[in-house]
Amino acid sequence: MSIIAVGSIAFDTIATPSGRVDNVLGGSGTYFALAASYFTDVRVVAVVGEDFTSQHEAVLKKRNIDTRGIEHAKGKTFRWGGQYLDNLNEAKTDFTELNVFERFQPRIPPEYMDSKFLFLGNIHPGLQAAVRLEMDGVSLTGGDTMNYWIQSSRQELTETLKLINVLLINDGEAKMLAGEGSLPRAARKVLAMGPQALVLKHGEYGATIFFREGAFGIGAHPFRAPALPIEEVKDPTGAGDSFAGGFMGYIASQEQLNREVLKRALFYGGVMGSFAVERFGTERLQSLTRQEIDSRFQIFRELTHLE
Amino acid sequence: MSIIAVGSIAFDTIATPSGRVDNVLGGSGTYFALAASYFTDVRVVAVVGEDFTSQHEAVLKKRNIDTRGIEHAKGKTFRWGGQYLDNLNEAKTDFTELNVFERFQPRIPPEYMDSKFLFLGNIHPGLQAAVRLEMDGVSLTGGDTMNYWIQSSRQELTETLKLINVLLINDGEAKMLAGEGSLPRAARKVLAMGPQALVLKHGEYGATIFFREGAFGIGAHPFRAPALPIEEVKDPTGAGDSFAGGFMGYIASQEQLNREVLKRALFYGGVMGSFAVERFGTERLQSLTRQEIDSRFQIFRELTHLE
Repeated sequence: MSIIAVGSIAFDTIATPSGRVDNVLGGSGTYFALAASYFTDVRVVAVVGEDFTSQHEAVLKKRNIDTRGIEHAKGKTFRWGGQYLDNLNEAKTDFTELNVFERFQPRIPPEYMDSKFLFLGNIHPGLQAAVRLEMDGVSLTGGDTMNYWIQSSRQELTETLKLINVLLINDGEAKMLAGEGSLPRAARKVLAMGPQALVLKHGEYGATIFFREGAFGIGAHPFRAPALPIEEVKDPTGAGDSFAGGFMGYIASQEQLNREVLKRALFYGGVMGSFAVERFGTERLQSLTRQEIDSRFQIFRELTHLE
Repeated sequence: MSIIAVGSIAFDTIATPSGRVDNVLGGSGTYFALAASYFTDVRVVAVVGEDFTSQHEAVLKKRNIDTRGIEHAKGKTFRWGGQYLDNLNEAKTDFTELNVFERFQPRIPPEYMDSKFLFLGNIHPGLQAAVRLEMDGVSLTGGDTMNYWIQSSRQELTETLKLINVLLINDGEAKMLAGEGSLPRAARKVLAMGPQALVLKHGEYGATIFFREGAFGIGAHPFRAPALPIEEVKDPTGAGDSFAGGFMGYIASQEQLNREVLKRALFYGGVMGSFAVERFGTERLQSLTRQEIDSRFQIFRELTHLE
């Protein structure tokens, strides 16, 4: 089943201890869509400027990603520059030029309306809600947010959280959203705000999914997927979006939606995040095979599997 | 098979968001011994002062821990005071009074000499090495260290690491020891210093065991055990020592020593650490049952187990 990915397309300038790249194709929607494309049909909703060429679009089309929802606006594409020189776990932003992204009003093409899965990338919570309300027929909505919206648009975010089935955020965002220093307590508070499940991304330590009591099955036990200890992290940019793409893409590819599927999805999320960081930008995500993905899934599984 | 635990016995004064306790029995040797006592016979080597009473000793004896290696010295027992008011993951030390611990020279009683397992708690690396060299017959030595020794006694620590089979430290210690910001690369460097296996404790994210190529079996794939997300952490003191006690105690209880045993040991380490933090001081570790331990082991297993 196809999934709609609403998010950003950007040109990133990134410096890490392994090197530097300038104006490479990035953005949350790009990482998400590429990662999800190995599991299911992906339809992108985003905005780009006049500097977004057919070569850039070809990167998505090669992965069979539907680009009809990409709006071509006058002006320049969103640009971001950052570095990870001291700490691979946290980017220091050098510049953010929103450009055409500043006035982004996501529009769902009619051809997308039969999609059953929706992922609301990290955009203004009011826009996320508008998209969700337009899509009557979706059976599962995933969403992301960030500290900026938690602080600046809490009221709208609170409304949006009621429309999201699975929220995917990192530990720091969960603590800020809940106003709570303990992760499991923060998770409980966030679930009380609306989502049936909450995926907390722990970076190199993996991710945990917390369930609302009774959601997607019996009980409320969390589930944790590890991350592979990777010696050579070239560029952490997009790891979280690639995680979300693997997670949501796998879910959308399954006939059923139950806890076992969500657990496997958590592992596939970790797998896609681990591939993303091996090369600069989206390079590694452009040329994977499902066999490579499944063989890493097995390694992740064995990483915590007791006989 | 019995295990010798060389470490500290202390009286701790601890403040956390859940409350405060004064001068409760603690110290790395105490946490380790109590945790390990649910798996195997434990023999303690430590030093205490005149303020260490028979009631304190009874806490250990009730768990069938051999206390003949506890030296009673003139003066006061090691005292430590700390708080975790802002951050449950890191203690702010209020005071450290080494007292009799300052001149601690671990002496192994003759009755202990047939032990096959040894754990060298966090004491001066020169003392650790001396104990290890005295114990000809041990088949496995575990060890701990800390930033203080890494900075102040690196030369002696380097020699000691050659005598330790399994080193158990936390992420920050590994990075400092290796002079390396990437955990997997730090792990590889530490293993090159001597140990056959390295257990990195990630706090609330669990722990990973890294193997030297070929040690304890084939290959060099790491293994990761999660930690249970615990809503109510009352007092994090001793979590790492309790982890080590569960890990080493389980190993000492097994007939064989292979990777599968080490993996299970990693889970049991996490289990004992998770119990330790549920109450102040060693309270929870004093009154567990093996049934409670094994039922939490199953929860931990299910936490990452895919069908």
